[in-house]
Amino acid sequence: MSTDAIQECEGGVTAAKGFIAGGLYCGIRKAKKDIAIIKSASPAITAGVFTLNKVMAAPLLADKQQLQKSNLCSAVVVNSGNANACTGERGMKDAWTMIELTANALNLPQEQVMVSSTGVIGQFLPMEKITEGIRELSTKLSVDGDKDAAEAIMTTDLFAKECGVRFSCGSSIITVGGMAKGSGMIAPNMATMLAFVTTDAAISPAALQKALNTANSHSFNCISVDGDMSTNDMLLVLANGSAKNKEIQQDTQEFKQFLSALEYVLVKLAKLIVRDGEGATKLVEIVVQGARTEEEATKAARSIANSNLVKTAIHGADANWGRILAAVGYSGIEFNPANVSIGFSDLPVLKPNYEIVLDEVKAKEALSQKDITILIDLHQGSAKALFWTCDLSKEYVNINASYRS
Amino acid sequence: MSTDAIQECEGGVTAAKGFIAGGLYCGIRKAKKDIAIIKSASPAITAGVFTLNKVMAAPLLADKQQLQKSNLCSAVVVNSGNANACTGERGMKDAWTMIELTANALNLPQEQVMVSSTGVIGQFLPMEKITEGIRELSTKLSVDGDKDAAEAIMTTDLFAKECGVRFSCGSSIITVGGMAKGSGMIAPNMATMLAFVTTDAAISPAALQKALNTANSHSFNCISVDGDMSTNDMLLVLANGSAKNKEIQQDTQEFKQFLSALEYVLVKLAKLIVRDGEGATKLVEIVVQGARTEEEATKAARSIANSNLVKTAIHGADANWGRILAAVGYSGIEFNPANVSIGFSDLPVLKPNYEIVLDEVKAKEALSQKDITILIDLHQGSAKALFWTCDLSKEYVNINASYRS
Repeated sequence: MSTDAIQECEGGVTAAKGFIAGGLYCGIRKAKKDIAIIKSASPAITAGVFTLNKVMAAPLLADKQQLQKSNLCSAVVVNSGNANACTGERGMKDAWTMIELTANALNLPQEQVMVSSTGVIGQFLPMEKITEGIRELSTKLSVDGDKDAAEAIMTTDLFAKECGVRFSCGSSIITVGGMAKGSGMIAPNMATMLAFVTTDAAISPAALQKALNTANSHSFNCISVDGDMSTNDMLLVLANGSAKNKEIQQDTQEFKQFLSALEYVLVKLAKLIVRDGEGATKLVEIVVQGARTEEEATKAARSIANSNLVKTAIHGADANWGRILAAVGYSGIEFNPANVSIGFSDLPVLKPNYEIVLDEVKAKEALSQKDITILIDLHQGSAKALFWTCDLSKEYVNINASYRS
Repeated sequence: MSTDAIQECEGGVTAAKGFIAGGLYCGIRKAKKDIAIIKSASPAITAGVFTLNKVMAAPLLADKQQLQKSNLCSAVVVNSGNANACTGERGMKDAWTMIELTANALNLPQEQVMVSSTGVIGQFLPMEKITEGIRELSTKLSVDGDKDAAEAIMTTDLFAKECGVRFSCGSSIITVGGMAKGSGMIAPNMATMLAFVTTDAAISPAALQKALNTANSHSFNCISVDGDMSTNDMLLVLANGSAKNKEIQQDTQEFKQFLSALEYVLVKLAKLIVRDGEGATKLVEIVVQGARTEEEATKAARSIANSNLVKTAIHGADANWGRILAAVGYSGIEFNPANVSIGFSDLPVLKPNYEIVLDEVKAKEALSQKDITILIDLHQGSAKALFWTCDLSKEYVNINASYRS
């Protein structure tokens, strides 16, 4: 399916039928919303992906157990300001308590509630405040609560991140909407990022997990702010079937439609995270083409995206293409440097055999934009990969030198 | 041999008998010394290690050919201000011309000259200036020229880096001295770093290469400033036998002595590079112990050393130990996070089972020092590794946002 058939729509996690949400301040952060709940009118088929970090925060450990018990979920509770990571047994107990409190407040079975946390590592959750927050918030959920929820999961984010899309599937209209947070500790293989996506599609559990894995590998696994992988990354998709379409099965035409819509939402949210990268002033799209395999293209793109030297040069609008080539050089892929061409947006910079066609004035102009594309052609195959990163600024240092203060 | 028997001495590349050197300004950089020569009175057994970057600069390609032809070297010529990297056939021709000019000026066989370059990537060398520089410098080499040489190989370095040591070997005194440059693009597996070491030891070629590989793996391969691996890294050791000791063979007592001395010099130079890291205000020693293997300890240490989040927290003297544990978590090693303990210098911060014993006031004080040790005990074995890095400051961004300007 072409993406033309996908229409953007208003709203995030409440765009799809049968979802309500909300967010408010309960006292974890300093005068900012810090607790959010998403609720489905009926139990939703749920799929998730979780951080690969060996240090996995308590809520993720709890959620993985929840998904093993049941792939149906009716509510997700999220707090910001405290990651409940590296908190041992007490942290596990607190995560289960958040699940229990939310289930009781919303009159749901405990196994249908998921929990998520983001913020500082190594501190215990202020459970009294959270208890009060869940109690109050559970009475205030609404279809207009998506923006409050998106705000309440922010940490160093400067803006809330939402996206919604619709497409026709047979005689039904299916909606996919989501929200995300994250701006630091963003690395390939997820990031310090949370993303929650809801859809009213009826879809089989296997098809939902497959669509999520594929869409994730082309979105959140292709962004990098600082190369640090978090203890708390998670991405959940809840599908409650309210669209009343015929249940989508794997590898059908309808599956492809759903995958395109999901990927659209995830890519959009992922790019919003990079644009909001800590201290970022530019969104950089890295396109590696002419590779032998997609894996090699991704490796090369990731290496460029994680290079502090490339990212500072872009911050200064300095057309230092040598750093880009050097980053491909240590990416671990086999290639002939003399065959490579490099361009900034539409501007060719380096042609094969090290023919430098750089126009410094035009390059400076291209690199001074808010949106920059770096195009690398390895000229040794037809595979391609996209990756998104941001520039590295002094503000990144400012934010991270005293994050806990 | 304990390192007590190794005495530091004055001088760098001219500390050992039979070596002269010099450095001067020939016009590549802006009013700063930019060309250096080291010369041995007799052909010296030479061993080298070179960058693993697939994009290898022209001088390194020439030197690797030189070492294949002959492991004897009598002179090394080095320029700063221009890396002669990504310069194709013309760059190769220029590297060979530098060798030829130096050989002619010093009346040496061409196969006994090595060449090295550091600076901007992707620009051609100004060969007229270099020709004049080599001509003039070749008449001015002296035993007092080590400091000028060490200055002339600097790029963004703030200070010249030299080290010399002596030890008794039988009835002979052996001296090992060296100089290095580098402050950005410093990553494991070498760095944008050049290091040249001279010794008057008589040593077999195989023993020299083995000592170099071992010492390098414990020094230059254990430092990181920004995680970027350069196209120009190289480390050469020249041993001219002027100390008249009995030729050192592998795996003897004398070999151990020599290795200790060489490692002492390389570790000292490596740490000087990190202390001079672009924008660095602190030298951080990372000690990972209690690992199952040295390889795993090194992996964990490298992951911490390359974490922008750890490095910015240290810059801000923020005791954010969670970021340290998270970096071990994504290093790729198997471990149980609940067993880990962490300390800053002498101050315990985290004990097993997430027992937080952090004293914020004392931690702030410890992290405000110029020299910081981070101690991680994995409590699952007896292997250990050291790694050195620096903090990440706004000045790093300043330097690298407009390096070419």
